[in-house]
Amino acid sequence: MSTADLDAYCDKHQPRFLDEVVEFCRIPSISADPAHAADVRRNAEHLARAALDAGFTTAGLIETPGHPAVYAERIVDPALPTALIYGHHDVQPVDPLGEWTSPPFEPRVDGGLLHCRGAADDKGQVWMHLKAVEAHLRVRGELPLNLKLVVEGEEEMGSVHFEGLIEAEAARLGADLCVVSDTAMHGPSQPSICVALRGLVDLEVEVTGPSRDLHSGEFGGAVLNPLEALSRILAGLRDAQTGRVTIPGFYDDVVELTPEERAGLGAIPFDEAAFREVAGGVAATFGENGYTTTERRTTRPTLEINGVWGGYQGPGPKTIIPARAGAKITCRLVPRQRPDVIAAQVRAAIEAAAPPAVRVSVTIGSANKPVVTSTDHPGVRAAARAMTEVFGVEPYYTREGGSIHPVEMFDRLLGIPSVLVGFGLPDDCIHAPNEKLDLGQFRSGIRVLTRLWDGLAEALPGHAPEGH
Amino acid sequence: MSTADLDAYCDKHQPRFLDEVVEFCRIPSISADPAHAADVRRNAEHLARAALDAGFTTAGLIETPGHPAVYAERIVDPALPTALIYGHHDVQPVDPLGEWTSPPFEPRVDGGLLHCRGAADDKGQVWMHLKAVEAHLRVRGELPLNLKLVVEGEEEMGSVHFEGLIEAEAARLGADLCVVSDTAMHGPSQPSICVALRGLVDLEVEVTGPSRDLHSGEFGGAVLNPLEALSRILAGLRDAQTGRVTIPGFYDDVVELTPEERAGLGAIPFDEAAFREVAGGVAATFGENGYTTTERRTTRPTLEINGVWGGYQGPGPKTIIPARAGAKITCRLVPRQRPDVIAAQVRAAIEAAAPPAVRVSVTIGSANKPVVTSTDHPGVRAAARAMTEVFGVEPYYTREGGSIHPVEMFDRLLGIPSVLVGFGLPDDCIHAPNEKLDLGQFRSGIRVLTRLWDGLAEALPGHAPEGH
Repeated sequence: MSTADLDAYCDKHQPRFLDEVVEFCRIPSISADPAHAADVRRNAEHLARAALDAGFTTAGLIETPGHPAVYAERIVDPALPTALIYGHHDVQPVDPLGEWTSPPFEPRVDGGLLHCRGAADDKGQVWMHLKAVEAHLRVRGELPLNLKLVVEGEEEMGSVHFEGLIEAEAARLGADLCVVSDTAMHGPSQPSICVALRGLVDLEVEVTGPSRDLHSGEFGGAVLNPLEALSRILAGLRDAQTGRVTIPGFYDDVVELTPEERAGLGAIPFDEAAFREVAGGVAATFGENGYTTTERRTTRPTLEINGVWGGYQGPGPKTIIPARAGAKITCRLVPRQRPDVIAAQVRAAIEAAAPPAVRVSVTIGSANKPVVTSTDHPGVRAAARAMTEVFGVEPYYTREGGSIHPVEMFDRLLGIPSVLVGFGLPDDCIHAPNEKLDLGQFRSGIRVLTRLWDGLAEALPGHAPEGH
Repeated sequence: MSTADLDAYCDKHQPRFLDEVVEFCRIPSISADPAHAADVRRNAEHLARAALDAGFTTAGLIETPGHPAVYAERIVDPALPTALIYGHHDVQPVDPLGEWTSPPFEPRVDGGLLHCRGAADDKGQVWMHLKAVEAHLRVRGELPLNLKLVVEGEEEMGSVHFEGLIEAEAARLGADLCVVSDTAMHGPSQPSICVALRGLVDLEVEVTGPSRDLHSGEFGGAVLNPLEALSRILAGLRDAQTGRVTIPGFYDDVVELTPEERAGLGAIPFDEAAFREVAGGVAATFGENGYTTTERRTTRPTLEINGVWGGYQGPGPKTIIPARAGAKITCRLVPRQRPDVIAAQVRAAIEAAAPPAVRVSVTIGSANKPVVTSTDHPGVRAAARAMTEVFGVEPYYTREGGSIHPVEMFDRLLGIPSVLVGFGLPDDCIHAPNEKLDLGQFRSGIRVLTRLWDGLAEALPGHAPEGH
């Protein structure tokens, strides 16, 4: 279907679209700062009104124990496919304020860039969605599929109440696909679609020896030192030569990449020296043998020691054998590792490594599933076509090493896959002073999304009415 | 030589001796508390006067940057052997005061025990020396050898200025043997002579990876975690199976015990269950294969991790790869390990174990030589004879796992061996509330010392006048 009509509408109204984003960005919706709670609510109310203006048929707030989310929908026909748009309307704090070249909540347009907090993360991208919907409705009178919109107010606080919201609103949020625009493209003129996120489990280890710190002169050599036992346990969890986690069963459920997937990742430009610089200037990379740096950090599971403590940490020596020692561990997981299985394996391996002269306890914390959306998924294919048409180049299929909690929650709680089409750029300074949005990306993003609705309407299977 | 005359004198004057100790113990000479600085000085002056009263020909204070020491001497004839008595006149703090059953500086005699701070550690033992000298002089008119007395005022602060004092006063302190009475016997009615103390070196390790903490989602699996590198380095320093330190050369200079020495140590009563209780209720002992617990803690070198730090230590998870990690290590050394050699070996082993993806630095701290006095040394033999005569049973030859700094300093700086004849008992509560001195030990201790001077006069080689 031609989208010349939609493009023409958007181009004509682009100045107003920009004015609207500027207006939205003036509201300092810093979720982490309790002093801005009223701003976050005002922001949500502003967004709900804008959703109605754009053409959603219902729009309102969903309350949480924290800041409210915004929910809107336009159900054209239950037999049509349904997409759920996810975004967030809260923004990061602005410290250090002195490093901003203009006030963070006084949006400034300059040289094709919109400078302000929230411009790229995520207000500008939420607005692209509203305007793509508006274009469809104003130009064609109706959407080609059903759309639902949920815009969280606590994403920058770790989506602390979003799981509860999804569970409470499961019936309303049901959809065939979730479309998330809260990430960046690989680079300018280089679109990308993130198709996998690693999962996470966290554990804490405590090694207990004597009931009090012992004098190392009096007891040294005759009692097992909890720090020695802990060091040995931690060192044993990974092979120093191969870089592989040694825990029995750890890799059993890992889905190896296909040669095509590896080739696709390998095609993404990567500069090892630049990566080492970004990684805090490390002298060398290190990881699992047989995998590239990109594969290691996004497609392979890992086990990291996040903290260790025990004994004396002050200046000078202290001649003790400490009573106890502890460590925090997180594992990053890839499809189809199961967090509960991995946590149990790690615990079992640590307990099996515990020498009899100390007591070792392992506490399992929170868990996040790894998520993946196949590059063959019709939603991913539709997104790729839309991006290719707008940017003139096919997108890279990327993977992220970290988690995006809402994506994992939609997958785990509702069984909804996500397609991550983000229009930020790597130099947008999100979470930092002088955040900006490239207005070319703003325009292109809306174009991609108008095409995406057409594409999804064709690609996603419809739902035949009951009885037919 | 009969000592009936000396014993009779001591028995006759025992009530006065006790009154004098009580008087001495009333002075709250807590060296660690600056508020008691004047008391420590008054205490030193009191002791110097008492040394003159006992018959030393000169006695006075030796100033230090901290609290003064007391020095006294009686040089009978330069051709005679010379013994140097070491003790300390300062005492431990008294916290927690509420746990004392009577005020710590109001000495109370009850049931054959003197209750007060400093009674056993070390005022009572210093007084035994004064009274043994007094007995010799009052009964026989002269000592059978030259005696020097140095009584430190900062032992309970770690003898922080004593090395400087020894270096400054090296000429005055010269002697054939040092006699130290600042320890306890193995048990009531069971005398012991400590013939060896372990030495010490301390080191600090720092492992540096990225220049800042990294997000473990973004970088996990592709960058070497400094805590993993540190754990591996620390785990590699000791063999988990044999309990042996793996550092090349570590045991090269260790003097293995003779079968006789091992038999002697093995004859000292030892209760493994009681030891585990004293060692903080550990589930099992652990140490170098082929050695008993007593041997491991006193005659074998060891390497202990005293503290480790790195990354996040607060509540809950934090998904980071920390920028750095560190550890404190001490090695306990036995004759004839050399602290500087061992420190260099440990540093080299750690540096050799450092993987190229992180930087590892090792800082060497302070060092103490191990010291040993052969059981064949005439001074040890004389002490053993004196103890056997007084207690009716031969002493055990024990070894201590820790260091006694002044003993190491006399050995290292002046080349003077020490014989450690202490008259405390294991339940004296030194460094704790309700310290006490057994008055039977007070009487026996003086008897041992009177005999010791006779024995040393016979056993130690005299110094022929120059020219003869």
